[in-house]
Amino acid sequence: MEQWLKDDERLDYLLAEDLRIIQSPSVFSFSLDAVLLARFVQVPKNKGHIIDLCSGNGVIPLFLSARTNAKITGVELQPRLHDMATRSIEYNNLAQQIDMQLGDVKDAPGKLGIEKYDVVTCNPPYFLAHELSEKNTSEHYAIARHELYLTLDEAVEATSRLLKQGGKAAFVHRPGRLLDIVSAMRANRLEPKRIQFVYPKRGKEANTLLIEAIKDGKPDLKVLPPLYVYEDNNEYTPEVRALLYGEGN
Amino acid sequence: MEQWLKDDERLDYLLAEDLRIIQSPSVFSFSLDAVLLARFVQVPKNKGHIIDLCSGNGVIPLFLSARTNAKITGVELQPRLHDMATRSIEYNNLAQQIDMQLGDVKDAPGKLGIEKYDVVTCNPPYFLAHELSEKNTSEHYAIARHELYLTLDEAVEATSRLLKQGGKAAFVHRPGRLLDIVSAMRANRLEPKRIQFVYPKRGKEANTLLIEAIKDGKPDLKVLPPLYVYEDNNEYTPEVRALLYGEGN
Repeated sequence: MEQWLKDDERLDYLLAEDLRIIQSPSVFSFSLDAVLLARFVQVPKNKGHIIDLCSGNGVIPLFLSARTNAKITGVELQPRLHDMATRSIEYNNLAQQIDMQLGDVKDAPGKLGIEKYDVVTCNPPYFLAHELSEKNTSEHYAIARHELYLTLDEAVEATSRLLKQGGKAAFVHRPGRLLDIVSAMRANRLEPKRIQFVYPKRGKEANTLLIEAIKDGKPDLKVLPPLYVYEDNNEYTPEVRALLYGEGN
Repeated sequence: MEQWLKDDERLDYLLAEDLRIIQSPSVFSFSLDAVLLARFVQVPKNKGHIIDLCSGNGVIPLFLSARTNAKITGVELQPRLHDMATRSIEYNNLAQQIDMQLGDVKDAPGKLGIEKYDVVTCNPPYFLAHELSEKNTSEHYAIARHELYLTLDEAVEATSRLLKQGGKAAFVHRPGRLLDIVSAMRANRLEPKRIQFVYPKRGKEANTLLIEAIKDGKPDLKVLPPLYVYEDNNEYTPEVRALLYGEGN
């Protein structure tokens, strides 16, 4: 086992998928949001090519590999996270299907090809650069969470350039940025078609937004049933338990 | 009773509010959407002036009169509906508080005054003009439901011109028009702040959108908990029963 891990890394289960993923408390651990996005996006079953931008430790490509036989390319800026993702992919024997690219999302269309891909997923940094607090934040987390090297507009633009006509773009973000994300999408030929709001609990405001757009799609937005994360007793709801642990699946 | 009613009109209860409203099956009956909007919008309790555009038979002003002592002016294009609203207001002895104006929403800012109002509510026509089917549609319903005399952009523009800085605009519409409405609002200095989606039942897609914006407000959108209309057994949920019949209120 040790040959796979560095420093304070752990090999965690992606339980619902019978996969393992390398994580580190000081560097990066995947969030529920990434899991939600990997289940929300509509992917071709048996062919095609998916790009995952802001891929972190590769959680979305790993999850998607259980849903599709399409090729998956992850793009991650930070060498440390790219390295963790690459080792997780090797550990799971998925190197035939998943390929991790080290680099800037803004350069991805130029490097990977324009209008070539069927699906692009992205769990971008949520917070504006000026929201960054110095306290308790490692550089790795700061870059993953704040728009230091990539703004939402830049992520959406790169997504659109990568996608074929009719290809799907799926993002997860905060509801407070809904208007920014739909504006950016429409400005980049991505027509929002499916939105789902995620609520921490019944009676609370939504804290997560899942959105899927189609490149050059016709306007026809659907708002899916809400997803709740926790029951009133603070346990995961059955839907989320199924996502995380495969129960009831 | 008869002196209040014409033709096939009925005097219906607005039960939750102990009010009556004149309706007619062949001309106009208020919808649940109007009731939802009248409860969703945030109104000043004791002063101020509210405008209700596309007021129909006055259901929103009548409902709002139970929530506020502010003056309320309704604007309705169709003389027949304006007349029903005026008689309902008289019947309920609310002529001191509610005033109905006959006229085009596009002319309302010029007639009623620019940047003078605290709140504008609007339950506009939902459907595009080309979606109009000739079958089974009275002219009254066609005008109320389709963008024959008023587009969404025009309704939002009139709303913004009527509102003071910091005033609130509240609309009800279909989720499929979410992107159009937020684009129109932002193009007219109205910053969306609160959105609530209404679902016919658990597990179904949303079929109604409630949205409130603040004129020249700062971007900070909240997505409120979802509202369900029907239980699985097709009875109204307790929340909607409370709105309609006052149960549990």
